Amino acid sequence: MTDTISIDGDRLWSRLEDMAGIGPTPGGGANRQALSAEDTEARRLLLSWTAARDYTAFIDAIGNLFIRRPGADPEAAPAAMGSHLDTQPKGGHYDGIYGVLAGLEVLESLDDQGIQTERPLELVVWMNEEGSRFPPTTMGSAVFTGALSLDDTLATRDADGVSVGEALAESLAALGDIGSRALGAAMAAFVEIHIEQGPVLEGENLPIGVVTGVQGLRWFTVEIEGEAGHAGTTPQDGRKDALKTAAHVIEVLHADIPDASADVRFTIGRLHVEPGSPNTIPRRVAFSIDLRDPSEETLIQASERIQTVCREEAGPCEVTVHREMGSPPTTFDPDIGSVIRDAATRHGFGCMPLMSGATHDAKLVASHCPTGMIFIPCKDGISHSERESITREHADFGAQVLADVMLRLSS
Amino acid sequence: MTDTISIDGDRLWSRLEDMAGIGPTPGGGANRQALSAEDTEARRLLLSWTAARDYTAFIDAIGNLFIRRPGADPEAAPAAMGSHLDTQPKGGHYDGIYGVLAGLEVLESLDDQGIQTERPLELVVWMNEEGSRFPPTTMGSAVFTGALSLDDTLATRDADGVSVGEALAESLAALGDIGSRALGAAMAAFVEIHIEQGPVLEGENLPIGVVTGVQGLRWFTVEIEGEAGHAGTTPQDGRKDALKTAAHVIEVLHADIPDASADVRFTIGRLHVEPGSPNTIPRRVAFSIDLRDPSEETLIQASERIQTVCREEAGPCEVTVHREMGSPPTTFDPDIGSVIRDAATRHGFGCMPLMSGATHDAKLVASHCPTGMIFIPCKDGISHSERESITREHADFGAQVLADVMLRLSS
Repeated sequence: MTDTISIDGDRLWSRLEDMAGIGPTPGGGANRQALSAEDTEARRLLLSWTAARDYTAFIDAIGNLFIRRPGADPEAAPAAMGSHLDTQPKGGHYDGIYGVLAGLEVLESLDDQGIQTERPLELVVWMNEEGSRFPPTTMGSAVFTGALSLDDTLATRDADGVSVGEALAESLAALGDIGSRALGAAMAAFVEIHIEQGPVLEGENLPIGVVTGVQGLRWFTVEIEGEAGHAGTTPQDGRKDALKTAAHVIEVLHADIPDASADVRFTIGRLHVEPGSPNTIPRRVAFSIDLRDPSEETLIQASERIQTVCREEAGPCEVTVHREMGSPPTTFDPDIGSVIRDAATRHGFGCMPLMSGATHDAKLVASHCPTGMIFIPCKDGISHSERESITREHADFGAQVLADVMLRLSS
Repeated sequence: MTDTISIDGDRLWSRLEDMAGIGPTPGGGANRQALSAEDTEARRLLLSWTAARDYTAFIDAIGNLFIRRPGADPEAAPAAMGSHLDTQPKGGHYDGIYGVLAGLEVLESLDDQGIQTERPLELVVWMNEEGSRFPPTTMGSAVFTGALSLDDTLATRDADGVSVGEALAESLAALGDIGSRALGAAMAAFVEIHIEQGPVLEGENLPIGVVTGVQGLRWFTVEIEGEAGHAGTTPQDGRKDALKTAAHVIEVLHADIPDASADVRFTIGRLHVEPGSPNTIPRRVAFSIDLRDPSEETLIQASERIQTVCREEAGPCEVTVHREMGSPPTTFDPDIGSVIRDAATRHGFGCMPLMSGATHDAKLVASHCPTGMIFIPCKDGISHSERESITREHADFGAQVLADVMLRLSS
């Protein structure tokens, strides 16, 4: 049996372009938030492509879409691949979409070359990976794997008061007749190919990343309570300026935390000042901390350091640290990593192992079955942006590696 | 002729309480923004008190209200006093209001004691001192003195699109028949009594402040341009984190600028982060600087230091400093200062000279005629707050000093 199949790069690229036509934004990106009319339209376009083939579509109770290509053994658990079609409000054309359409290209290339796999192959479109309309992110895969409750999730509402359940019912009605499937159906393996969303592969000039896992994540909110006062009349001594303390704490944290490990990611992305008037001493500041590292131990140490800095550098203010959401580091299946590395090497594509700093559906699925991820570079590491961009060559190389990996996992 | 008159502290206090009933807020303050129905109602209440007296009311083209008590010499320019009745959206019962009602108490005490002054006395209610509905602050006195153009000011709109001209016409219609008066009418002198809005008098346990002038003010906006990136995927090295740079610049400025002089006031009250998402490296930060000092030279030196710090501490980001509004320091008339000090001393009220950190209508009027200001303490230095508070004793002492000062200035 062959260990490689040729993918059709023209077909893949043209489908990326077709998909980009749904929910276009003035800035040249896409707006297809989960379960919106545009998201449904994207699924319909995908189904129009697969309708001509001998595939069967299923949808589960949270709206994850499965497209199954039969295998020689109909009882065998499928080898699955996929990603998501929903985007950020000002998203691009590749984050998620590339993974779905590369998966479609794998299915069709197998057809074109008349190859029957032992296991069925399934292409999965996970519902609401971005979480921008309905929080949280990776909603569909989280419900699929039991990390989120179905009932609670269906009751989650968007900013306009529409629930996931209502939006999902509307989307299903628009999609027409699709077989339903229970949550958590068995999979022999799952592989997600995705743009890196970071600059490492581009910087190393390598087309393939073998993703070893997803960094652990901890979010904190730091609240600083000071005392308001008139900017002109309150003497400088004795002020309790919450923003002065915040700036000092942030300066110390930025000096300290990145030393926790070579891989640590430390970001303060949101800061809010009250009352936020130029001539009033800030009474209260709240800021976010996003902390990531591959090692749970490093996360624990850095979290303790955050607590210590906030306690010791508070000055005249009161500083409290609230731990928000988080997730431990995830390690992907090393055997699937080897399969990915072998496929890349066989084609002469340079590759390197790397951790994912962003979360992905594959992180959730890793609790369900052996899971791996493949990264391809994106221009300047930019994602979640209308400027998101990949090269045609990287699109081809990634799909080629995915094809060979799926061929191997389904045999 | 007498050099003192007795004021009626009970009457003054009861009128402060009556006025507090207009536009009450749930938190126990007042909301009477300029030219609102509540502001107009406050003026109507004032006019209901003066209607019984031999006074004449006038209003000028920007809505400043003048209540004139005749003097022996009808040709003489009036000795004027006053403040404002408008409040912040969540304001208190004393900022501005106390100055108007203490002035009314002076007029009525003169009546009660049958004293005729040589000059007419006028009580002025300046329009829109707070500037919270229609910017800028001290609008009425600025138009009165020619610092703002009448036409431009009448065209200024609030957040609902209502212009000053429209709101003023509505207020005038509700007030009924009041004589009109040209802008910039002559005054022999102007005295404003006001709560300190700072903690100095309370800290020194002194009931009277002889205000020597108003600090000069410079506002700046600092803009920091960095580069957005994914919090999880962008390596720590090479980030252009606009908030990290902002925190560092703010830390350095807070360490440096307050050394410029003993009187300098340095406040960063507003800070805005873009895009403001916890998992995105901040692309842009803008923050305000409010800088005040009695010395123009210190303001110049501190402004240069701000420029230098922003240039030298920018790190990988681009920092630009925009100079916004400002005003040079104002010095009040020293002779009026002496009259205030003498009056306080005669009654045995402790007093001290001090600069005003906040701006006031008196700052504008100082360009028009000899001007002075009197401060009384306010609890914890708090103003622009529903918690604004003064003692009955300080209200009495202040009105007593104002009465004697106006008696002297009108003779």
